[in-house]
Amino acid sequence: MEKPYVVGIDMGGTNTVFGVVDARGTILQNGSIKTNKHADVNDYVSELTQAIRVAVEQVGGASKIKGIGIGAPNGNYFTGCIEAAANLLWKGRIPLAQLISEKLNHIPVTLTNDANAAAIGEMTYGAARGMKDFIMITLGTGVGSGIVVGGNLVYGHDGFAGELGHVIVRRHNGRKCGCGRHGCLETYASATGIARTAREYLEIRPENSLLRDLDPATITSKDIYEAAMMHDKIALDIFETTGYMLGEAFADFIAFSSPEAIILFGGLAKAGRLIADPIQVAMDKNVLNVYAGKTKLIFSQLKEADAAVLGASALGWEAKEV
Amino acid sequence: MEKPYVVGIDMGGTNTVFGVVDARGTILQNGSIKTNKHADVNDYVSELTQAIRVAVEQVGGASKIKGIGIGAPNGNYFTGCIEAAANLLWKGRIPLAQLISEKLNHIPVTLTNDANAAAIGEMTYGAARGMKDFIMITLGTGVGSGIVVGGNLVYGHDGFAGELGHVIVRRHNGRKCGCGRHGCLETYASATGIARTAREYLEIRPENSLLRDLDPATITSKDIYEAAMMHDKIALDIFETTGYMLGEAFADFIAFSSPEAIILFGGLAKAGRLIADPIQVAMDKNVLNVYAGKTKLIFSQLKEADAAVLGASALGWEAKEV
Repeated sequence: MEKPYVVGIDMGGTNTVFGVVDARGTILQNGSIKTNKHADVNDYVSELTQAIRVAVEQVGGASKIKGIGIGAPNGNYFTGCIEAAANLLWKGRIPLAQLISEKLNHIPVTLTNDANAAAIGEMTYGAARGMKDFIMITLGTGVGSGIVVGGNLVYGHDGFAGELGHVIVRRHNGRKCGCGRHGCLETYASATGIARTAREYLEIRPENSLLRDLDPATITSKDIYEAAMMHDKIALDIFETTGYMLGEAFADFIAFSSPEAIILFGGLAKAGRLIADPIQVAMDKNVLNVYAGKTKLIFSQLKEADAAVLGASALGWEAKEV
Repeated sequence: MEKPYVVGIDMGGTNTVFGVVDARGTILQNGSIKTNKHADVNDYVSELTQAIRVAVEQVGGASKIKGIGIGAPNGNYFTGCIEAAANLLWKGRIPLAQLISEKLNHIPVTLTNDANAAAIGEMTYGAARGMKDFIMITLGTGVGSGIVVGGNLVYGHDGFAGELGHVIVRRHNGRKCGCGRHGCLETYASATGIARTAREYLEIRPENSLLRDLDPATITSKDIYEAAMMHDKIALDIFETTGYMLGEAFADFIAFSSPEAIILFGGLAKAGRLIADPIQVAMDKNVLNVYAGKTKLIFSQLKEADAAVLGASALGWEAKEV
């Protein structure tokens, strides 16, 4: 193969991690820089592309790179821009794909949001190999989603499709969401949502709980997981409720695209059967008859440390010269 | 063009209507037979194909027909079968596409459900010409949907995707649905759903209403429409509530596929602004910020009498020899 490698860049609010990846998903070179060190995005791009250039030289130089893929908050596939990302320093519309391509020998750069990148990574290297219709759900600080229909990522007419964390699951007395509305799925089913549920339960329920030893303000999903593993009743109930709400929502998602699988990824997915069992119960109970038992619920097969970079890198294979 | 025509077949529970259609959407020949006259599906197919053969001879014979498209209840695009359709006589899995093709010179036949056919018709001849991402919502006896993503109908992994009438919009005390579950969108927003709302309102509200002159058991969406046009407060409120629930649901659909437009079709859509205004209000109020103001709410541009046949016929253009 003339150009046997791609570069994957995963831009998070804190760190930007990158890797040079081959067609089998092996990360040959990697590195990272701080995302929010530079007030000017051009300085960020300079530091990042300099670091990437060094890594690329190790594998034979820019001529070996087929493309670069970026997963970034609010990344838009159609425009190559990031727009109004809440936890980044740079405001407005940043033409990130173009800025990076210009600094790296005009290698084609494709950009999308992090959940879409995860879906493409799963399809290229992970649990969704061979699948044409699936939904990736990322259970992190928020709830993200990447939807694949007929083998293609769903971008919508504007490049912003697939915000299933912001489907409204509680129309009355729903929790306030960071997006300004109330009752979004991610206010319940994200790492921060489940911590909110813990604080609510500790407030209104009388039982003893290991969680009462902690400062409610700093309880994390990991604390709840550890308490649940010790058979703590309140912690177990929190997972049960959270999973059930996810399963109810998934039953509706299935009515939309009838996916072969829903794939769980991210911090909360590490709770394994604690979260997956109630999801499955609620999916089975709420799904429309015609879909019953057809959609698999599975976990990501990508190693967590590598998944974000692999997902972004997978986009590099479809990057086109502009 | 060697094969300048297609045949569209719209199979309803009562009548099966067909037409021979050209590339501009002109219906050159048409006809209909009773759907449920024959206990044996083979007799139905014989009568239908005989009638189609006569129509096709008028335009030059089977060699002029590129393909045949069928919109049918529970029609599956992948298998060409209708499966377990509630209001048809024939039980089990009927290989309708194959049966019809065998009787008509092996012209390729493509089949899907009625709402999907309507979406393809709208894309080929109607309001969605040039659109690659839109959602067709059919407000009839039930609520159907056809979802187009990137220019393609969403069929899902099993051919049954796009049952947005069965998204659950009321998790608590939801109305019993024909599907056996509770709270589905179509229990509120279909012609039968809005009549249910009328009966509820007349029961629990004290105001006078023109609708009180009618037998509650036989109130139709048309009665409610006519009362609303006379400024009847209860009738107006019924449209307001129904439209608002649709708009809330549409805001969630937008988070899935970010369509350029949502297109309304079917009996309730004839209520025009009575239903569209509250939908728009609820969409604007409930949609996630990133989508605000981007998705148009429009009405079908196909003439109601022809729409079903045109929609089915549009499928004929993509039918492939097997």
